[in-house]
Amino acid sequence: MTTTKIKKSLHTELGHSTPDRITVRGRDLPSEILGHLNLGDMAFLELTGRIPTPQESVTFNAIVVTLVEHGITPSALAARLTYAGAPEALQAAVAAGLCGLGTVFVGSTEGAARMLYEAIPFGEKPARPLADMAKDIVADHRARKQIVPGLGHPLHKPIDPRTPRLFQIAEENGLSGHYVALMQAVQQEAERVSGKSLPINATGAIGAIAAEFGFPWKIIRGLGVMARAIGLAGHLLEEIDDPMAIEIWQRVEKEAGGPRQDWTR
Amino acid sequence: MTTTKIKKSLHTELGHSTPDRITVRGRDLPSEILGHLNLGDMAFLELTGRIPTPQESVTFNAIVVTLVEHGITPSALAARLTYAGAPEALQAAVAAGLCGLGTVFVGSTEGAARMLYEAIPFGEKPARPLADMAKDIVADHRARKQIVPGLGHPLHKPIDPRTPRLFQIAEENGLSGHYVALMQAVQQEAERVSGKSLPINATGAIGAIAAEFGFPWKIIRGLGVMARAIGLAGHLLEEIDDPMAIEIWQRVEKEAGGPRQDWTR
Amino acid sequence: MTTTKIKKSLHTELGHSTPDRITVRGRDLPSEILGHLNLGDMAFLELTGRIPTPQESVTFNAIVVTLVEHGITPSALAARLTYAGAPEALQAAVAAGLCGLGTVFVGSTEGAARMLYEAIPFGEKPARPLADMAKDIVADHRARKQIVPGLGHPLHKPIDPRTPRLFQIAEENGLSGHYVALMQAVQQEAERVSGKSLPINATGAIGAIAAEFGFPWKIIRGLGVMARAIGLAGHLLEEIDDPMAIEIWQRVEKEAGGPRQDWTR
Amino acid sequence: MTTTKIKKSLHTELGHSTPDRITVRGRDLPSEILGHLNLGDMAFLELTGRIPTPQESVTFNAIVVTLVEHGITPSALAARLTYAGAPEALQAAVAAGLCGLGTVFVGSTEGAARMLYEAIPFGEKPARPLADMAKDIVADHRARKQIVPGLGHPLHKPIDPRTPRLFQIAEENGLSGHYVALMQAVQQEAERVSGKSLPINATGAIGAIAAEFGFPWKIIRGLGVMARAIGLAGHLLEEIDDPMAIEIWQRVEKEAGGPRQDWTR
Repeated sequence: MTTTKIKKSLHTELGHSTPDRITVRGRDLPSEILGHLNLGDMAFLELTGRIPTPQESVTFNAIVVTLVEHGITPSALAARLTYAGAPEALQAAVAAGLCGLGTVFVGSTEGAARMLYEAIPFGEKPARPLADMAKDIVADHRARKQIVPGLGHPLHKPIDPRTPRLFQIAEENGLSGHYVALMQAVQQEAERVSGKSLPINATGAIGAIAAEFGFPWKIIRGLGVMARAIGLAGHLLEEIDDPMAIEIWQRVEKEAGGPRQDWTR
Repeated sequence: MTTTKIKKSLHTELGHSTPDRITVRGRDLPSEILGHLNLGDMAFLELTGRIPTPQESVTFNAIVVTLVEHGITPSALAARLTYAGAPEALQAAVAAGLCGLGTVFVGSTEGAARMLYEAIPFGEKPARPLADMAKDIVADHRARKQIVPGLGHPLHKPIDPRTPRLFQIAEENGLSGHYVALMQAVQQEAERVSGKSLPINATGAIGAIAAEFGFPWKIIRGLGVMARAIGLAGHLLEEIDDPMAIEIWQRVEKEAGGPRQDWTR
Repeated sequence: MTTTKIKKSLHTELGHSTPDRITVRGRDLPSEILGHLNLGDMAFLELTGRIPTPQESVTFNAIVVTLVEHGITPSALAARLTYAGAPEALQAAVAAGLCGLGTVFVGSTEGAARMLYEAIPFGEKPARPLADMAKDIVADHRARKQIVPGLGHPLHKPIDPRTPRLFQIAEENGLSGHYVALMQAVQQEAERVSGKSLPINATGAIGAIAAEFGFPWKIIRGLGVMARAIGLAGHLLEEIDDPMAIEIWQRVEKEAGGPRQDWTR
Repeated sequence: MTTTKIKKSLHTELGHSTPDRITVRGRDLPSEILGHLNLGDMAFLELTGRIPTPQESVTFNAIVVTLVEHGITPSALAARLTYAGAPEALQAAVAAGLCGLGTVFVGSTEGAARMLYEAIPFGEKPARPLADMAKDIVADHRARKQIVPGLGHPLHKPIDPRTPRLFQIAEENGLSGHYVALMQAVQQEAERVSGKSLPINATGAIGAIAAEFGFPWKIIRGLGVMARAIGLAGHLLEEIDDPMAIEIWQRVEKEAGGPRQDWTR
């Protein structure tokens, strides 16, 4: 008998199995979930404990679908290079790709949502006009010399084409409220103050819509992580059929291993 | 100008962006995908390059949904323990959890599909009666002292409740063919020879249905990996709200760090 | 011929190979390194580009050796649980264990070094008495309600037994200067203000000594990561011979999957 | 009180702590290890439970030092690309790099050792002349159309310059026995049969010397993993100072995202 002092019981609400039943979030997996829920709805159930309404389903699926695939990214390259060395462990190649979804890429959804929640705690009404809040948010970031999360894109100018579509879907499905409006007010203020075009990028739109759902900011990066796991599987399947990892490695090794050159002259 | 000898051009069919367009698998992401495809359909598009038929959509979503959540698993524990040490990097906690989806868990979908494809190459008709193939498959595994992939479950006896439901969905949607039939023939033969109850488990059912779709066996493990990334996000959200990692660590450390004990007496 | 605009040449100083030579950091690997450098010296060469003096060798080896093994940790458990699911990929099990070496564990070496460098930039002399700096550092952390990195330990009280030994080794080898002294001043001030025992823990001592070497704070977490990779290999070898992962999983699943219990009553 | 049925006690021999003592492998860390053991010796202690003799220390350090750095590799690129996206989590970038140390790279040490142990179980004397064993090993690999692990190198021809040096160190330190001799016999036979130059590469030499130590083949891949964790920290430090990841990504994205081209014409 263990004598370990137990300080806390261990508990999960997520899933439970007996010999003849498998329950997920309180629902019988075979009869209530399989054949009834699509993968996005299942993710919603997993995260919230309830099945989305049709409006929530369309909107939630749209934000995660947005994050699945974005062409050749550092994350996709890391996964492909890993697979080239360890084809016995496809799971580790996906894992390697996910490790780079941090503060620079994808993780910025988290920053946008956190910024919005700090201005308007979830469940509360805005205490002041949104334009005033936006002024303070932008001024605060400028004072700290930080970029405002969710704004600007190196390629997609003057607008990120995903953003108006995501906001349209949210609007049509009753999921465009204070957070989307505040994100838009922040954008206008940031453009006014900087004099530059600063579109709301996809991570800003997703952060705002995720806040409308009330997802805690700490898990919002997870939406991108789960979506990109799908995209990375796609990249690995392509890598199996038409590899690029070894060619990239050999080109880089050849160039980088030699004497330093200045290509920029 | 680089002098590197280029042996192979680099190319991807998955995604491409210009300033005002984002294309995934040849489709305009904002107008043709967002709001139209659910996350499972998007995964299907990503892997195959085409949008699933309604029947394929229901069946494919069902097999990936099956793999999302299975309660406390070694993978979920690894993710939670990782998060406890590095809450700044939720993506790395998901990655840590995925690293364990190998040959023992989840990866067995791959083994089942591979076994079926070796018997009946994709696109071909069975060359012999399925029962004869099943005899050879079972005899061959017994001769090599290997378990037949996709059969048996430590908990779910005499049947794995996911399997009949998945086969029903595949049947109703026209996706139950030679591979499902051969998997069932293999099970019957394995039970006959061993005298034991050997249900087709969920990974066996998924491997067989994935073979009906024609997914290459090398990527089939990826179906579980993408699905479990969703489940791991769910576990991490629960870990944030109601943690268990530190408690588990402390209990284990206390017990394991002391003099060896024999609890089994 | 590629038309890609090349903005920057790619270059590495770390290693280079020709058919008959392998060079690491400008030294011939077979004749100048193998048989001459131990693994800690090699790590020093890899990070700094030069071979350590005998005094640096003893001290640097001591700080990395300290971080190799610390019994059952969340990181060791994550590695073991991963191996249980994917024994085909030992590298992924080590990787999973490393993913948790973040801000909570091991990574705190980084915080201590960063704090010290902010007070005294590397290569400069202290601008004010160390006691004054320590006062400001402690007051600043209290104002921001943050713990001072490198102080306090849940188990090792009133002293962490590694700290005096590490400081002794640094002292004997001429590597105890302003940073070690400032760390000690910070500790005294923190104890004075809080009225609590706050020993300099191993990560605080290592952060301070790493600062004496001048390692950039961004890489200091890497010292723990490289050391713990060794420790995780040790845990996996033990897990192969005398496994605990499956047992832990089954205990946790049994307890956590049932109705919620309150063990703390 | 937990009612979980405990089937197995949990135990570790690796490390243990009390408030005033930290023990690793039965030795007091501060007084018996710190300042006395270098990092390679610590790794040896961690894996074997004993301190190496001076001869073992030189040889073991040499084999792990060999694996630390090999210039730009797919693994180093994966780590650098990961860091570019998630600089908040250096540990995850190292982890991503390690995930690719599988059957294709580094992991081949494991294959060589396993092949040697299958011919001569550890602790036994060779049952037949080594040349006969070598004949069978080569014939068996040819029959299965598999390459012989540890032989051949795409760049280092006609010899891998690490191999004679490693064998020299092993010889001088009394660690060159049946396994090194069998590896050499296998090489001669493989060259005789194939008519090609097939040098013993570094992983073949390391696999053979690791077998002389008696390390179980399942952990031998871990020697490369621990060594490369050091090398990856070096690459990340260089990436911080002189980055290449973003440039590589942008070049590849530009080339791969456009219409397919055939550079090889």
